[in-house]
Amino acid sequence: MRISELSRRSGVSVATIKYYLREGLVPKGEATGATQARYGEAHLHRLRLIRALVEVGDAPLAKVHAITAALDSADGGDLHRLLGITMYALAPEPHRPAEGDPAWTAAQEEADALIAELGWRVTRSSPARGRLAAALAATDRIGRPVSTRILRSYARAAEIAAEDDLTVIDPDAPRDQTLEHVVIVTARLEQALAALHRLAQEDASARSFGRPRPGAGA
Amino acid sequence: MRISELSRRSGVSVATIKYYLREGLVPKGEATGATQARYGEAHLHRLRLIRALVEVGDAPLAKVHAITAALDSADGGDLHRLLGITMYALAPEPHRPAEGDPAWTAAQEEADALIAELGWRVTRSSPARGRLAAALAATDRIGRPVSTRILRSYARAAEIAAEDDLTVIDPDAPRDQTLEHVVIVTARLEQALAALHRLAQEDASARSFGRPRPGAGA
Repeated sequence: MRISELSRRSGVSVATIKYYLREGLVPKGEATGATQARYGEAHLHRLRLIRALVEVGDAPLAKVHAITAALDSADGGDLHRLLGITMYALAPEPHRPAEGDPAWTAAQEEADALIAELGWRVTRSSPARGRLAAALAATDRIGRPVSTRILRSYARAAEIAAEDDLTVIDPDAPRDQTLEHVVIVTARLEQALAALHRLAQEDASARSFGRPRPGAGA
Repeated sequence: MRISELSRRSGVSVATIKYYLREGLVPKGEATGATQARYGEAHLHRLRLIRALVEVGDAPLAKVHAITAALDSADGGDLHRLLGITMYALAPEPHRPAEGDPAWTAAQEEADALIAELGWRVTRSSPARGRLAAALAATDRIGRPVSTRILRSYARAAEIAAEDDLTVIDPDAPRDQTLEHVVIVTARLEQALAALHRLAQEDASARSFGRPRPGAGA
């Protein structure tokens, strides 16, 4: 297809596609003239992946480049490595704790202990490990620690969800499409989880502090 | 205390405190001279709440104002109302679906059905209801719907967490402090949940696609 059709089908403007081409985020098309080229499904998948990373994953272009470079490398078929690079790129920047902050050290140990107890295979440098610790430290500091019971209950739900997430991954599908779907499913699931938590809070508050329902007993 | 001590104890600069005073976000202190005033614990709690809303909750000042106005009104003791205003202020803007988008209509019905099945007391206009529907619609559109089993499993964990969240709420404590703690606990719990989800994904991916551990069977 020509660049105009690629633009229409991907939802990315021609100018932006040309920018991505110059930056090496999208492989060059097949030249059909001095100034024209033809593009294929692979280019479409690449643009859809970039859109998902930027619009859904809020990833800066430097991180997008790390992912596309991995896809275009000789090792571009290694799923676990690609998923790792993608998910680490989607991670919000970990919180930088103050030097020697005792709440931080205790929270790191708590996070590490929970991960070990769950038997999860997670690298030491995983950004999510640091973000879990940062969240625990923040609540510890105001004297409102998250209970281990709550964490375990959510961890079990997270395991079920993560197993389900894996079904998005078809080892025979184009890698760009697989990563695009993982990005969208992950971001939207996290949005759904946060929404469920807020809805449950609204319900709990209504039952504890709200006005009785018409017709309900006193 | 004088404004300098209030600044030190709250972590908010004197200039910003004066700005908040002018905007009516913080009640005036007790005038002790033409240009001086004394402040008390209530002012400290108010500043800590504002910091939590802005720094942890990412709330714009217009929404902070809605909360402080409610606290300072005659109805300032109504916990359910205060929690509602606060939590709705913390909600990210709901996604604006395209007119007549069939995925959106179906997702709204799915979200409503789940909330009804769980028996949760939630208003029709709750922003979290719209965000749950938006998340479901996004995954439906790429042919990767979130399974109801996953949603129910997370909803149960959310109910347990929400009951626990309520323990943060001491009806006899100053309302400003109660809201400050609810903001921090909610934001940090959601951060912990997202981190747990990513950690579980990393583990599931390692077990499915990663290299076998040294010493493990083929």
